[in-house]
Amino acid sequence: MKITTALAKVQPSYIREILSTANRPEVISFAGGLPELQSFPMTLINEALAKLHNQPALFQYANTEGYPPLLNFCRAHYALDDTQTALICNGSQQGLDLIARAFIDPQDCVALQAPSYLGALQVFDLAQAQIVSINTDNQGPNLAELEQCFASNKVKIFYAVPDFHNPTGACWSLHTRKRVAQLCRQYQVTLLEDVPYRELRFSGENLPLVSSLCPENSIVLRSFSKSIAPGIRLGLVSGPKAWLAALVKVKQGADLHTNVPMQALLFDILTHTDFANHSQNLKRRYRDKYRHMANILSSDFASVADFTPIEGGMFIWLKIRHCDTDALAREALLENVAIVPSSVFFKGKIPNNSAIRLNFTQASTAQIELGLKRLLKVIMKLQHP
Amino acid sequence: MKITTALAKVQPSYIREILSTANRPEVISFAGGLPELQSFPMTLINEALAKLHNQPALFQYANTEGYPPLLNFCRAHYALDDTQTALICNGSQQGLDLIARAFIDPQDCVALQAPSYLGALQVFDLAQAQIVSINTDNQGPNLAELEQCFASNKVKIFYAVPDFHNPTGACWSLHTRKRVAQLCRQYQVTLLEDVPYRELRFSGENLPLVSSLCPENSIVLRSFSKSIAPGIRLGLVSGPKAWLAALVKVKQGADLHTNVPMQALLFDILTHTDFANHSQNLKRRYRDKYRHMANILSSDFASVADFTPIEGGMFIWLKIRHCDTDALAREALLENVAIVPSSVFFKGKIPNNSAIRLNFTQASTAQIELGLKRLLKVIMKLQHP
Repeated sequence: MKITTALAKVQPSYIREILSTANRPEVISFAGGLPELQSFPMTLINEALAKLHNQPALFQYANTEGYPPLLNFCRAHYALDDTQTALICNGSQQGLDLIARAFIDPQDCVALQAPSYLGALQVFDLAQAQIVSINTDNQGPNLAELEQCFASNKVKIFYAVPDFHNPTGACWSLHTRKRVAQLCRQYQVTLLEDVPYRELRFSGENLPLVSSLCPENSIVLRSFSKSIAPGIRLGLVSGPKAWLAALVKVKQGADLHTNVPMQALLFDILTHTDFANHSQNLKRRYRDKYRHMANILSSDFASVADFTPIEGGMFIWLKIRHCDTDALAREALLENVAIVPSSVFFKGKIPNNSAIRLNFTQASTAQIELGLKRLLKVIMKLQHP
Repeated sequence: MKITTALAKVQPSYIREILSTANRPEVISFAGGLPELQSFPMTLINEALAKLHNQPALFQYANTEGYPPLLNFCRAHYALDDTQTALICNGSQQGLDLIARAFIDPQDCVALQAPSYLGALQVFDLAQAQIVSINTDNQGPNLAELEQCFASNKVKIFYAVPDFHNPTGACWSLHTRKRVAQLCRQYQVTLLEDVPYRELRFSGENLPLVSSLCPENSIVLRSFSKSIAPGIRLGLVSGPKAWLAALVKVKQGADLHTNVPMQALLFDILTHTDFANHSQNLKRRYRDKYRHMANILSSDFASVADFTPIEGGMFIWLKIRHCDTDALAREALLENVAIVPSSVFFKGKIPNNSAIRLNFTQASTAQIELGLKRLLKVIMKLQHP
């Protein structure tokens, strides 16, 4: 049976593929976007699991929007006003997919930061969007380029990750946030603000959500995968009521509703008095791991590579001088260290392929040291064969 | 923001809508396809929940195909051969949606039994399929009509529910199964065999899966919602490896993977020594409820309605003489009894609207009695105003 025209054009996820080969125990992985297993709040999870006993109503069919106590908590916690509502999804990835399916007709124009989150590229490719890339640096998207893009294309959605961008780790400045909100308003572009890493700020000051500056033009995608645990597959979409109603209609056909016991578990964890401690702990652990990796990169890699310091998230974007990082990724895997080369984060033209994305949350401190040693050896070998 | 052309044409689920209004405690619902809350295997569920404690690996990102122990169990239990593989989904509804997204280009032809499962209509509508309806009676689809349809259209998929069809409860005869398999082979049509009710046979003999008679042309959709509990949202798709690979590619973008703790829980329940007892019990309970409802319908409703006895599943298809069942459904809800009129199960032309679907699993025995009393009163009122 022939697959659809749209699917034939979609690349399988490089990262999902590499993760399956990088599963060998001897491989140290900086490739995935995996949170640290040891940081999962198992005490809170155990307590919440115990509360699911003898609760048959949590195992029945439920409404598409989500488990009401969890939805109500989220509406209050994220201060949604009367014009807005929320929907619980199977991870924020499903939220993204529902949005594309509800609003993107083939050839509709979607603007993305370049480099981009791979999962977003997959979703918009499958929706057959016309994708326009906006170059992004440490402050966020190039604003002149963004305005030019909005002015010359009928952009329907601008998909953005303003907090600790995947893959670059960049966090948009306040100036950029204000200007992007203004441009979205001016050109009637919907801002799709994806903030899976927002709760992972370990230094610096919180900045407002871009969507808070243009709420009537925005949809927000939140994830509980990084701040709690990804295996429960729970995320939240919020935005104007009429738009959310369209997402609910797609979700009815997509899977009726999200699994209820895990929603009840999430509600229990989010409202637990110890949850704030868990969050503090998690950020401290990630800050320490980041510093450890950053220190090694700053010292041992100084002659071959550099990176911009980050204030949160899970990734360092390491720019390596005179290096074909596609070749580097292949060679590194042979030496049992997994990384993702920059090329996979670009759609169409690749400005250069000299960077790599390094995840610092999954590996242990000892693995970070050993993995970076292996990586440096491979870089040296490639540069001085 | 404008919704897509495809979504604009999709009807929201009548049943999901009615379920949300039928939630008032005073309403007795024969409308939904809800299993009986009291029949959920809570002892097995409790035991399985306890095993999730202190298992952080079950809360990490996982592979798209599913939790390996569960997948391996399913491969063995359903006797998949080397040419076949399986994928765990968020309920079989997601499997259906993934199949449509992977294989149905706009205007591709899909044949469905009429009346049809609403969730399938929604999915194929959203995929912009050209839908052809095949009239169905108690033996299954009209075979002459099916062959005529296969011969004169380029049908890509024939979606069918051979065991205790939703909404009619009909179970295909062996002759029909053989003939449909032969026709699918002859005309190279993929049989999409949806068997959510197959484990709910409470009388008569099991018949072979239609797909077992044409495995290289078939995809099977299984659900754990009816045999265990729907809130966990778990289903299974199985079929030829190349086709399943396409589904995995779509699922990567759709939600990365299915939640893992519920997969581990399901694995634990399916492999528990007491699971067979639960299944026997469940079928006994449903048989008793069915008989209770059927007895009342045969006696009290004899002058106004009739139905074909069923051997399993969750629904009775009650044909009411001289009755506009759309009006009946509205009037009945005013009298606090919820039913689904036949019209909602048809796409396009509605041959007649004189039947209703009655679910007998959700309501208690006492509620069945009271609900049917209310319903009969409304029918009488409508027929003799």
